[in-house]
Parts: sequence; C-alpha cells; structure tokens
Amino acid sequence: MAVGVVGARGKVGAEVCRAVRGADGMTLVAEVDVDDSLDLLVESGAQAVVDFTHPGVVMHTLEFCVRHGIHAVVGTTGFDEARLETLRGWLADAPGVGVLIAPNFSIGAVLMMRFAAAAAPFYESVEVVELHHPDKADAPSGTARRTAELIAAARREAGLGPVPDATSTGLGGARGADVDGVRVHGLRIRGLVAHQEVILGGVGETLTIRHDSLDRASFTPGVLTGLRSIADHPGLTVGLEGFLDLP
Amino acid sequence: MAVGVVGARGKVGAEVCRAVRGADGMTLVAEVDVDDSLDLLVESGAQAVVDFTHPGVVMHTLEFCVRHGIHAVVGTTGFDEARLETLRGWLADAPGVGVLIAPNFSIGAVLMMRFAAAAAPFYESVEVVELHHPDKADAPSGTARRTAELIAAARREAGLGPVPDATSTGLGGARGADVDGVRVHGLRIRGLVAHQEVILGGVGETLTIRHDSLDRASFTPGVLTGLRSIADHPGLTVGLEGFLDLP
Amino acid sequence: MAVGVVGARGKVGAEVCRAVRGADGMTLVAEVDVDDSLDLLVESGAQAVVDFTHPGVVMHTLEFCVRHGIHAVVGTTGFDEARLETLRGWLADAPGVGVLIAPNFSIGAVLMMRFAAAAAPFYESVEVVELHHPDKADAPSGTARRTAELIAAARREAGLGPVPDATSTGLGGARGADVDGVRVHGLRIRGLVAHQEVILGGVGETLTIRHDSLDRASFTPGVLTGLRSIADHPGLTVGLEGFLDLP
Amino acid sequence: MAVGVVGARGKVGAEVCRAVRGADGMTLVAEVDVDDSLDLLVESGAQAVVDFTHPGVVMHTLEFCVRHGIHAVVGTTGFDEARLETLRGWLADAPGVGVLIAPNFSIGAVLMMRFAAAAAPFYESVEVVELHHPDKADAPSGTARRTAELIAAARREAGLGPVPDATSTGLGGARGADVDGVRVHGLRIRGLVAHQEVILGGVGETLTIRHDSLDRASFTPGVLTGLRSIADHPGLTVGLEGFLDLP
Repeated sequence: MAVGVVGARGKVGAEVCRAVRGADGMTLVAEVDVDDSLDLLVESGAQAVVDFTHPGVVMHTLEFCVRHGIHAVVGTTGFDEARLETLRGWLADAPGVGVLIAPNFSIGAVLMMRFAAAAAPFYESVEVVELHHPDKADAPSGTARRTAELIAAARREAGLGPVPDATSTGLGGARGADVDGVRVHGLRIRGLVAHQEVILGGVGETLTIRHDSLDRASFTPGVLTGLRSIADHPGLTVGLEGFLDLP
Repeated sequence: MAVGVVGARGKVGAEVCRAVRGADGMTLVAEVDVDDSLDLLVESGAQAVVDFTHPGVVMHTLEFCVRHGIHAVVGTTGFDEARLETLRGWLADAPGVGVLIAPNFSIGAVLMMRFAAAAAPFYESVEVVELHHPDKADAPSGTARRTAELIAAARREAGLGPVPDATSTGLGGARGADVDGVRVHGLRIRGLVAHQEVILGGVGETLTIRHDSLDRASFTPGVLTGLRSIADHPGLTVGLEGFLDLP
Repeated sequence: MAVGVVGARGKVGAEVCRAVRGADGMTLVAEVDVDDSLDLLVESGAQAVVDFTHPGVVMHTLEFCVRHGIHAVVGTTGFDEARLETLRGWLADAPGVGVLIAPNFSIGAVLMMRFAAAAAPFYESVEVVELHHPDKADAPSGTARRTAELIAAARREAGLGPVPDATSTGLGGARGADVDGVRVHGLRIRGLVAHQEVILGGVGETLTIRHDSLDRASFTPGVLTGLRSIADHPGLTVGLEGFLDLP
Repeated sequence: MAVGVVGARGKVGAEVCRAVRGADGMTLVAEVDVDDSLDLLVESGAQAVVDFTHPGVVMHTLEFCVRHGIHAVVGTTGFDEARLETLRGWLADAPGVGVLIAPNFSIGAVLMMRFAAAAAPFYESVEVVELHHPDKADAPSGTARRTAELIAAARREAGLGPVPDATSTGLGGARGADVDGVRVHGLRIRGLVAHQEVILGGVGETLTIRHDSLDRASFTPGVLTGLRSIADHPGLTVGLEGFLDLP
C-alpha cells in the first residue's frame, strides 16, 4: 500500500512516517506539510493518506483526497456534526473511498471509552477530565468530547436523568464544559503528553478509568490498523473501535 | 425473608443490619456476634444469614448454616480452593441451600474486575494495588487476589506469556505478592476505607482502572441483591457478578 | 470555654457539636440552626461560636457575634475581599474579638497549600482540581480559590510569567475558572467527600499534591485548634496555618 | 569544563551526552561504554564524569575516577552504607575531588522527598509506591529507599511510634519491602518511565505527593546543575538537594 502523510513534519506526523516506513506491506510515498501542494499525493500514487494536522485545514485536504479517490485516516480533531455531514456528502459521490475519523488512535483510549459507557448506567454521577501538554489547540480534546457523548447516550438509554449538581454560586468555567449534560474539564500542563480520566460515582463509592499516553508512539499501532483496514470500510467511519476485535 | 446477621456488632455488620431493617420484604430476626450462640439463628427462624466476620471463624458458621438449611451471603475473606472444596462437600448434602462467597459486594469492584480482565489481553504488563485501613487482617485483600486470578486467566487464554520484569537486585517484598504470575501490592493507611487500582501497560501507554469505596454503606446494595437472589441459586456461587445483569 | 455552634443540625455542624462535647476544657452551650434566634448565643453565655453554614447568612451571624463580643471560628465559604474588608471594619470597633475565616480546617489541606506554593517557582505550568459531593453550593471551593491565589503570588514573586496555553478553539468552560491566572476546575460527583489536587509541570515531569478528606471528622481537629487559639488572636485571621506550628 | 560520560550509549547516558553538548561552558570529551577502557577519561582530559550505569560496575569506575582526580556525578543506584563508607575512604586520600551520588536528579523528586519528610510528623500512617518500566534492575528504586529513610527519620524525630498494621494472614511480599519501618512497593509496568507516590494518612484524610517523570530529559537539568557545582563540593555528597536553593 502506497501511503502519503499530511502534516509530515509535525511531531505526530513524523512518528507516523517512522511507523509507516517500518511497517510490513506499506511504502511511504509522500510527505506533505504546510508549504507543499496536495498534488504531491496524486503524483506519488498514494492510495491512502494519514492526516494529523489542524482543524483549520483538514477539510480542504479531505475534499481533495475524496475527489481523487484516496482513502484517508484522520487524527485531526475538531469534527462536529456539520463537518461529518459535509464529508458524507463528498463520499456519497465517491463510492469505494473510505475515511476514518478517529479522535484517538490508541487502544487504551478506545477501551477507556467503551468501559466508561458500559459503567455509566450504574452510576448517578460522571465527569470527564482530560490533561494535555499546553501546545494543544483545542479544549476539550476530541477524545474527551466523544467520551462524554458516549456516556450521555448510555445514560439516556438506561433512563437516567440529569447528573446531580447543586452549584448555585461561583466563578464562570469552574464546572467545566457541558457536553450533552456531561461535564468535561481540560487541563494544559507542561510535561504531560495525553491523558484522560473518567470518574463515575454513586453512594459511597467511585469508579475511575484513566488512560495515559506517555509517548506519541502509542498512537501508531492504531494508525497502522486503520490503514490496513480502510479499503475494506468505504464511506465514513467515526472511531477506531469498529476496526478492532473487541469483546 | 427472615434474615440473620453474624458479626452484627462489627462495623460492617452494623451497616448490614441497618440496610436489612430498611429493605422492603426483609425482616432482621437475629443479630449474632462473637459471644452469642449460633443456635439463635435457628430459634429466630432465619432463612438466610449474612456473615462479615473473620477467616478464623467463618467456616464453623457456614457448616452450621448449611446443616440447618439456612442460605448464606458471605463477605468474610480468606477463602482458598481448599475451603471452597470443603464448602462444596457440605452443600452436596444439602440440596436447595445456597451460599454466596463474594470478596466484594460493591458494583464498582465487580466492574473493576470485569474491565481488568477484558483489557488484559491487550497489554504486556499488569499489576494490582489494593489500599485499605490498617485494621484489616489479611493482605492482599480477597478482591485483589480474585482480580489477579481473573487477569491471569484472561492472559493465558489470549496466549500471553509472563509479564516482563528485569528485577535482579533489591529488597524482599518490594515486588509484591505473586498471584498466578500477577504482582499484587497491599497498602495499609489510616484514613483509607477500601480502594483498588489495576494498572495495565504497553508501549507508550497505560490504562488504569480504580475503585474507591469511601463509605462502608457502598457494600450494602450488593448484599441486599445477594439476599434477594440467593434462594434461586442453590449450591456455591463465588462472586456477585453472577447475580447482576451486566453487559 | 463556652462554645456555641451555628448550623448545628447540618452534617458538618453536627460533627462539630460532637467534637466540642468530647473536647477537654470546652462546653457546648448553644446549638443554633436556621429557625433559631441568634439571641440564644448571648443567652447561653457563648464565648466563641463555630459557623459552618451558607454564604447567604454568614455575614449576618458574624455581625451579630462581633457586636456581642463573641469570637468566631468560621468554615463557611464565599468570602471575597469585599466581605473581609467589611469584617475588618466591624472588628476595628470590637478590640479583643477574634474571627478566624478558614476555607479548610484540615491539616492536610493546609500542607497541600503550603507545598503547592513552595513548589510553584520551579514549574512552568500549574492547575488546581477540586472534587466534591454534588450537594455543594459553590464552585470552585474556597480551598481551591485560596490555593490558586497562593500559587499565583508565589509565581509572581519568583518572576514567572503567565502559564503556557495555546488553546484557540473549543467549548466554553473547558479550561476551568481563572483565579489570578491559575486555572481551577471543580468536579461534583456522588460518593466523594472533599478532595483536591494541584498539578505542577515542567519539561518531562510533573509533581502532584493531592489531599483527600474521606470523612467529615477530618475537619474537627482543626476546628478545636481554632477554638483553643482564637482568644489569643484578636482581629481577623484568614487561614488555619497561622495557628499551627509548621516548618 | 571537560566532561566524560560513562554508560554513554545507554538510554539515559545518551540523553546526558546530548545535554552536555548543548550546555554553555561544557565540552563532551569522552563517551565511554561497556567495551571501552576507562583510560579514555584520562587521555581525553575529562575533569568530571557522569555515570549512569549498573550497580555491578559503578564502584570500579568511581575508584578509577577518584584515583585520577576526576570529579563524578553519579545516577547509578544500589548504594548502601557500606559502599558509601568505601567511597569516603577513597575520597579521604584525594582532597579536592568531589563525588555526588544522587538517587534522582529531577527537581520534582527532590521536592517530593522534602515534602514527604515535612508532612510525616503529622500523620499516623505512610507508605511509598514507586512505578517504573520493567527493564529496571533494582527494586525498590534508590529514590524510594531514600524517601523512606527520610520519612523514617522525620517520624523518629517527632516521637512517632511504628505505623499501625494489623496484617496477620496473607501472602509473602504483599505488604512490600520494609525500609526503616516504612513499607515500600515497587511496580514494573511497560509504558511507564519513572514515577513515585508517597501516601500519608490520618483519621479521615490522606495526603498524597506524586512525582511523574514522563521523559528521560527530565533528569538532565539536575545533572547539569551537579556538574556545575561539583568542583565546589569536595568529598562525598548524597542527594542533589544540597546543590539547590530550596526554601
């Protein structure tokens, strides 16, 4: 498989390039960054592209890829329903092309989300805390938003009402962001890489599920899995879990 | 249902008495402690007994209950395979009598164990840390031992070999207790109640599942569930999870 | 010493009553709650009052106490500079009367704040997370605000600039409340009591200082210390640390 | 200053080489590893040596350095009182030569130890947990042993007796290693770098001080500080804290 990497000179992109170079059955044919033309992808014969860039440019790249029949494995964050709908529109005109949008490519993050959703029906309270290095552009992280959405859906399905919260006085922002009724808090601290904690609580007990990425290399096995499976998943897929063999 | 509590004047036993008194469809008919005769259970007409006592006396109590056709819901720790085998022998002669041995009655503990076993196949390393108040008699806790056993079984089934460990010098005990190849560490600290953490790790990332019981009352919903279901589960059951409706 | 308790039938107030009753050299002479007149304090001869109530009523109680020459040990939160200034005004007219306003009476909380301020000059980043039960009225907690203020002062004194934060897109509230340039996050989760974490980070490492109150009784030693020392500290004191013998 | 690095091709040694190369006023003159002769250090004119190697070889290297008048900054672990005494003997014959033995070169580790010792007198219970990657040779870590020794000394000075522990049954090793009466637990998990937690507890509350090294680069500022100060500290120094300007 001929693979192009967009955002190739960013920290994450460089790790992806290294992983693709070392992977069986893959060839790294294009390394594109901010000053390069996307035409390089077509000229190099890339069959699939990996994109870890910025919310401000990713849609332009994806429109280009879909139009040229190139699959895309995307770790860039900032996708809301409007963006996904736009993507689905483009893909409807390009049968056979697959796009994977995954807010997190680590198996640990996927397990964290799955366990959080499975535990949610048993607990009155739940909140999400994500912690990252201070160079990150978006807050909360895409993984944290998605986790909160999955938890909110599991609570609704179980017939749970709103989480209890008697806050009546205080400072703006203290209670975090509201994602479908689930509070999400984003910390930005030098020295950290990418970390997230889901805390669930009921009378007299709490259950905490925490994922720590201590090295960017932890993302690469999931990216390679995405590349290997993308041709078999035409259309839009959101979340790596559909590509994994989980219980 | 007529319920007797053994160890009724212990801290946990007193909570159980309070919960049974407040529960629909249950009557607390006997409160037995160290200076009382077990005959009280028979005289009071107890149909089921709850036992939170000490490894040194629980077998005597259970032999008495099984012989008199009284179901038992048991939170006392210290059960090894030999003790379970003895129990199975007694129960073979008492069809219809149910005994539930659960190292932990909190839903959070059950979820922690289930998630730890589900995640185990994806990680090279895993260890268990349990933290309790310093008045606890056994180390590691029954919950920690059972968690380690479940993790070890999941690793074996997934074809994983031993966890990596290059330790070649140090102090005895530093690496914890070995339970089926999984290291288990027990901390005893004033101010704590009952806490446990399972840490799983692979290249560049870790997943941590932590359960905190901050109040003894967190045990009681599980005990009531055990009492309500025990008559429908004759014979020996180990672990509350069989009585729950989990995914 | 004759002690009155205001908010005596609240959970914390009841613990305080129990502690005062059991303390050498103290007599509990008045238990006042929402429907009682403050005149009870004068009639009972209370020399000092303990107040764990609500931001909406505490100023009225303090005005009454100061006017009647009764010392006050106050755990109620919600004091800003304007309120403290008002208090100082009242106290200026009542020489000999002492008021202690402490956002937290536990020795652990005091140590956490002191260590956080001592470590602050060595780290580029720092944030505060406080976690409480969901019945709490204010967010962030008084302890968290005070911790952030102490950290901010220590950073200023060390000549540190603002913490790094590249956030440019996201949801309102995700980055918490801003207290003197230090981000503070408040979680509200059933099962929790009172917990706080300060996370400091620099290149490649973080230092975390965490305090967990698992039982309301953890506040009472600090309250008794406050009562024993208040007569020797006329005027306004903010924070228990001045009454302790710390390094 | 002309600096030689022993263990230069190990992971930590390579980071040290990088840091020395990038540091003002230092020149990296020798990179020695397992197959090289120590004579390289003398031939290259090294004035100071950094040693991050293995307990089995470090004493041989130090004897060589002291005999040749070369200062040494040592991060290798495994030093007990007998080894330190031997070192002091060698140094007595080499006035002007300085050796710094530091179990941890990160400022966070030093602060963790200092805070743990400062808090120890206020708490009935305390234990130490260290967590590292599974390729580490010694357990517990040198930092954890030293932390426990400092805590034990602070407790003795405050007149505290032994920590409470009612453990009477269990598995060998579950309660960790005993260092001067303080229990120390060592975890070895893939994905981790170097982490340590000190948990102190009293009635109803705990205080936790945690240090996380997420990147080996976190050690290098301390190493450079050691190199810059070593010539001014002849004889044996144990611990980086003496070289820092701490409160």
